[in-house]
Amino acid sequence: MNLIVILVAPRNPLNIGASARAMQNFGCDVLRVVNPYQVAFREAVSAVSAAPLLQSAREFETVAEAVADCFLVVGTTSIGHRELLHPLRFLAPGARIIRRAMAKGPVALLFGSEKFGLSNDDLSHCHWLMRIPTVNQQRSMNLGQAVAVCLYEIARGSATAAPPKKNKPATMGEVEQITQMLLEAGRHSGYIKPVVASSSEEKVRRMVRRLHISARDVSMWLGVLRQVLWKLRSSK
Amino acid sequence: MNLIVILVAPRNPLNIGASARAMQNFGCDVLRVVNPYQVAFREAVSAVSAAPLLQSAREFETVAEAVADCFLVVGTTSIGHRELLHPLRFLAPGARIIRRAMAKGPVALLFGSEKFGLSNDDLSHCHWLMRIPTVNQQRSMNLGQAVAVCLYEIARGSATAAPPKKNKPATMGEVEQITQMLLEAGRHSGYIKPVVASSSEEKVRRMVRRLHISARDVSMWLGVLRQVLWKLRSSK
Repeated sequence: MNLIVILVAPRNPLNIGASARAMQNFGCDVLRVVNPYQVAFREAVSAVSAAPLLQSAREFETVAEAVADCFLVVGTTSIGHRELLHPLRFLAPGARIIRRAMAKGPVALLFGSEKFGLSNDDLSHCHWLMRIPTVNQQRSMNLGQAVAVCLYEIARGSATAAPPKKNKPATMGEVEQITQMLLEAGRHSGYIKPVVASSSEEKVRRMVRRLHISARDVSMWLGVLRQVLWKLRSSK
Repeated sequence: MNLIVILVAPRNPLNIGASARAMQNFGCDVLRVVNPYQVAFREAVSAVSAAPLLQSAREFETVAEAVADCFLVVGTTSIGHRELLHPLRFLAPGARIIRRAMAKGPVALLFGSEKFGLSNDDLSHCHWLMRIPTVNQQRSMNLGQAVAVCLYEIARGSATAAPPKKNKPATMGEVEQITQMLLEAGRHSGYIKPVVASSSEEKVRRMVRRLHISARDVSMWLGVLRQVLWKLRSSK
């Protein structure tokens, strides 16, 4: 994925590690950090669980250097705390633009520090800003979670996994066999009264069809009903 | 939001706290925990930063009790580690079904423990399973991040924030004023040669229009150019 995640002044090693993990989940390989809190960065990189991606993360002193080889620079923000001087896009439309830009060259996605977000100076390097549509009462997201949500949306549609197998439904012959056994159980148990038998039968038939029984469940249904019928018959 | 997040056997207090934070970000109020690692749960609930949502989280001994009042129960999985006996949906189509179901009654969304995910017994309470489309090499997500991504997708489209304001573009009069000053600077500096002046003028005019200068940037452009021109003229 032609996307470079840039953490600006991150302070918490757990968040740096979580960002790296989300990047791996969504197939994003290049992490850069700008002016990190050194203790945090060293701790994150040296963690037992640190991914190669994190160990190869490059460190920069300025945003300008970190984005120098990128064709599009997008900053993330939860706004509200200052006036925005940039065009602002919600994540979904923003991600569509980022995906198109990634076809042409590297795109930088900036995340600010946990406490202050991106500074106005950081933002001045961005073409536009992007916001995750959180509720207004609680806009600010955890850094690692924000990275995960952004990458999920940007990677949208590129998933390579095979579509899930649908359950093969039972044949109508099998469904009717189950229906008949249920009806017999209904008659044996007194649930279905002879007087209204035909309308009861229809009700039961419709009900069984609403279950959408799958092929592999047929034998279990038949087994249970067979046992119930045997018991009902023998108890007469 | 008519969605109940259920953490089954969570072990890490940070993940429990992160899940609660993501719930607040996306307007989801009801958290339940089943059979949590007690030390972790107590620590999460008593953290200084613990949200009221977390403090009001109810604890259950079994999945059956935790989902008893729900109309739809969906389990999350990264699969791969065992054969699935349930229909599996990717997050986006799954979230659409969940949104429709939420209109009718409470929907439960289950997340398993960090280490083992949901057990087969937990899964047997689910109508179907949902998977975040991560890359195959690194399927398993951090718990707090998985909660954030799921809730982001389920809350999709319900964001109430106003659409971002577009930048008002400069008038063509202003754009031409900037163009003329650039041209004058080009002539004064020797960039534009008298012989090819007309084709150079056209090039500069087209270039300035490609900038899509916004209304609020006009005065800055004019200020910069005015200053440059003053310097160029006075240095003759």
